[in-house]
Amino acid sequence: MSAQPYGQAEESGSYRIVAMETHDIRFPTSRELDGSDAMNPDPDYSAAYVILRTDDGAEGHGFAFTIGRGNDVQTAAIRALEPYIIGRDAEDLGARYKELVYDSQLRWLGPEKGVMHMAISAVVNALWDLKARRAGKPVWLLLAEMTPEEIVGLVDFRYLSDAITPEDALAILRRAEPGRRERIEHLKQHGYPAYTTSPGWLGYGDEKLRRLCAEAIADGFTQIKLKVGADLDDDIRRMRIAREECGPGFPIAIDANQRWDVDTAIAWVNALAEFDPWWVEEPTSPDDVLGHAAIASAIAPIKVATGEHVQNRMIFKQMLQAGSLSYLQIDAARVGGVNENIAILLLAAKFGVPVCPHAGGVGLCELVQHLSMFDFVAVSGSMDNRVIEYVDHLHEHFADPVEIKNGAYVAPLAPGFGAAMRPESIAEYTFPDGPAWRSE
Amino acid sequence: MSAQPYGQAEESGSYRIVAMETHDIRFPTSRELDGSDAMNPDPDYSAAYVILRTDDGAEGHGFAFTIGRGNDVQTAAIRALEPYIIGRDAEDLGARYKELVYDSQLRWLGPEKGVMHMAISAVVNALWDLKARRAGKPVWLLLAEMTPEEIVGLVDFRYLSDAITPEDALAILRRAEPGRRERIEHLKQHGYPAYTTSPGWLGYGDEKLRRLCAEAIADGFTQIKLKVGADLDDDIRRMRIAREECGPGFPIAIDANQRWDVDTAIAWVNALAEFDPWWVEEPTSPDDVLGHAAIASAIAPIKVATGEHVQNRMIFKQMLQAGSLSYLQIDAARVGGVNENIAILLLAAKFGVPVCPHAGGVGLCELVQHLSMFDFVAVSGSMDNRVIEYVDHLHEHFADPVEIKNGAYVAPLAPGFGAAMRPESIAEYTFPDGPAWRSE
Repeated sequence: MSAQPYGQAEESGSYRIVAMETHDIRFPTSRELDGSDAMNPDPDYSAAYVILRTDDGAEGHGFAFTIGRGNDVQTAAIRALEPYIIGRDAEDLGARYKELVYDSQLRWLGPEKGVMHMAISAVVNALWDLKARRAGKPVWLLLAEMTPEEIVGLVDFRYLSDAITPEDALAILRRAEPGRRERIEHLKQHGYPAYTTSPGWLGYGDEKLRRLCAEAIADGFTQIKLKVGADLDDDIRRMRIAREECGPGFPIAIDANQRWDVDTAIAWVNALAEFDPWWVEEPTSPDDVLGHAAIASAIAPIKVATGEHVQNRMIFKQMLQAGSLSYLQIDAARVGGVNENIAILLLAAKFGVPVCPHAGGVGLCELVQHLSMFDFVAVSGSMDNRVIEYVDHLHEHFADPVEIKNGAYVAPLAPGFGAAMRPESIAEYTFPDGPAWRSE
Repeated sequence: MSAQPYGQAEESGSYRIVAMETHDIRFPTSRELDGSDAMNPDPDYSAAYVILRTDDGAEGHGFAFTIGRGNDVQTAAIRALEPYIIGRDAEDLGARYKELVYDSQLRWLGPEKGVMHMAISAVVNALWDLKARRAGKPVWLLLAEMTPEEIVGLVDFRYLSDAITPEDALAILRRAEPGRRERIEHLKQHGYPAYTTSPGWLGYGDEKLRRLCAEAIADGFTQIKLKVGADLDDDIRRMRIAREECGPGFPIAIDANQRWDVDTAIAWVNALAEFDPWWVEEPTSPDDVLGHAAIASAIAPIKVATGEHVQNRMIFKQMLQAGSLSYLQIDAARVGGVNENIAILLLAAKFGVPVCPHAGGVGLCELVQHLSMFDFVAVSGSMDNRVIEYVDHLHEHFADPVEIKNGAYVAPLAPGFGAAMRPESIAEYTFPDGPAWRSE
């Protein structure tokens, strides 16, 4: 029958996935202007959420992060993947990943970008959550204990071979094998450094900005980030306040959230240069490899960081080839989940560019910490010049929320990917019928 | 209220859109291997279809083209745009376009790519169909009679200013003003040249290929296209047959449908060079600007053509900046509809690259002919080196099907965009409950 999916049911393991459950979950964050920036003035942080259940009682949780409207479309896209998952196992996640990405008909809806790719991300991450729970390990440790060959088997190298081959990837992973054990211990003792975006939302007043800068430093963070790009005079005033509070030399990144054209980006960033920004993030369209490269060369020595909206490994490949960025910001739930992020970590290692993940939103901190910790143990082998973004909201809705100590993510030890939301939160914030929305 | 769309109802014209109707329409084309290529072996050509209705009885039709599974997700994405359209008019389509693209929450699902952007395309094209019907003109003529200023007002120049500014666009359009009337007459008399892909589907046998090549020439086409990329020996054999049938010098394009990595593309195309391919289409990932540029320089003088899967104007901009392509292939229903395609036509004119649209699928010929004809009259002012793809199937389902005469598209004169499908076809092929699918 022609309108059936590629991945038919089979029994390749001792268990099978028997159910997929989805939820449209939205938090009314726009009421408080948390998360406000120059392109996203009023986000309602949301999750198109998926739970996979097996016939032996195990669960895997995953989600796509959105900022409100359209979360129903995102949830429908996840549902469309149900036939590819039911009857399957979560053992060979290299094979599962490729089945999802290469379905000959679904592929037309991207390929490998936008709503359909984010849906694949949610399902792939749920499969990783499931696999890690079954193994009794956190995802970062499960990955960090795989052999280089097993890790390479998870990656789709299609369209990458002009930048990195499987052999290159094996060499990178083998180079990092010595010292894995010590780095695992280091993570367990010291965690992974974080920076905080909490002071810098555009919707906050000057006094709140000043207070939150002081709090960030008191909390042990070694970097902060400010949203910019709506009004240059405001940005100059806010950067001056932040620089006064943080002192000279303290890393203050700025984030334009795609607001500018190339020439505007160059002029605007150079107008803020006196305040010594650590990096400028998303200065223009996330699709504009050459635009980022032009900006990078015109604002040097100020660095460019980008990636939270980069759609897939092909754009990251080109950004590395073209010198578009100095800090690569993976997002745990936009590209094709863990598998594609491993490809991106390997690309970054090949080009010697540090990975500083995007986080915040709903549950992105919970997920992405695993990828940076895996990178530290088994890929780059380094924490130099690397920090994970941290935003302090909505963690209370997760069963295993991130823990920050002395400005660092504490290495999570609970089995899984940290993606599981508390059932009470799912019920409360389900859109449009949950109690949080019914009162509207 | 925070979970409501940006575009609230208003009464800016003398009529308003009062209803949106959507249909998940699929044709079981995989049964005959029509449309089979190296990446899409078994497509069921489909349309996520939308009809807008006004309070004074007018209609506008549009659709996103998909190849089967996922057409339900695409239809859901169109439905999500309903609140942005109800209560609005179709007069200022520059404003309508920007409201759809810049909704502060929906934008996160792209931005400007994938399922959500294709949904915007369907709705924008339906608005153009509506506007043109009300004006009593075909879309190509409606556009071709607008002033340069009006045309510029339809375009979103964000992220383009490093390649083209509104002033550049005005200069291009003004340069083409003299002779508009003569070119309109030329189109009405001679139409616009077409090439045919019908001979070249991978699923066809050698004798069918040979017969269809002969028929194409007999029908007056001045170019054909063959699908390649699954097996090199097969491609050599099929290219030899096509070259024998068509004779030396006859333009035979080849199309790899994204099958190759960069190095493979270069080797494969050079292995077919003895058969003098006219262009190679989609040699690699549609996202790979730099990969296309590397291929273009390594296979010269053979040319690169691409665009049917290029997600938006930012990728086209870079492909023009990097020299990634020699023929730019717009698609009528993937980027943000008529408005974004005008931006792309202007970019191509700025860089002096001919536009040879992608067509085929369901109704893409019906739509895209309007854009090439508008380009000829008011933008590039030229037909040199330009052809519109033509594939001879599924036209019978449209109320105003394209007409091909002497290898050229006859200029359509019926009011609208040609997007309207026959009600009987909609009923027959609605998935999964239409008669065509119930028998499965």
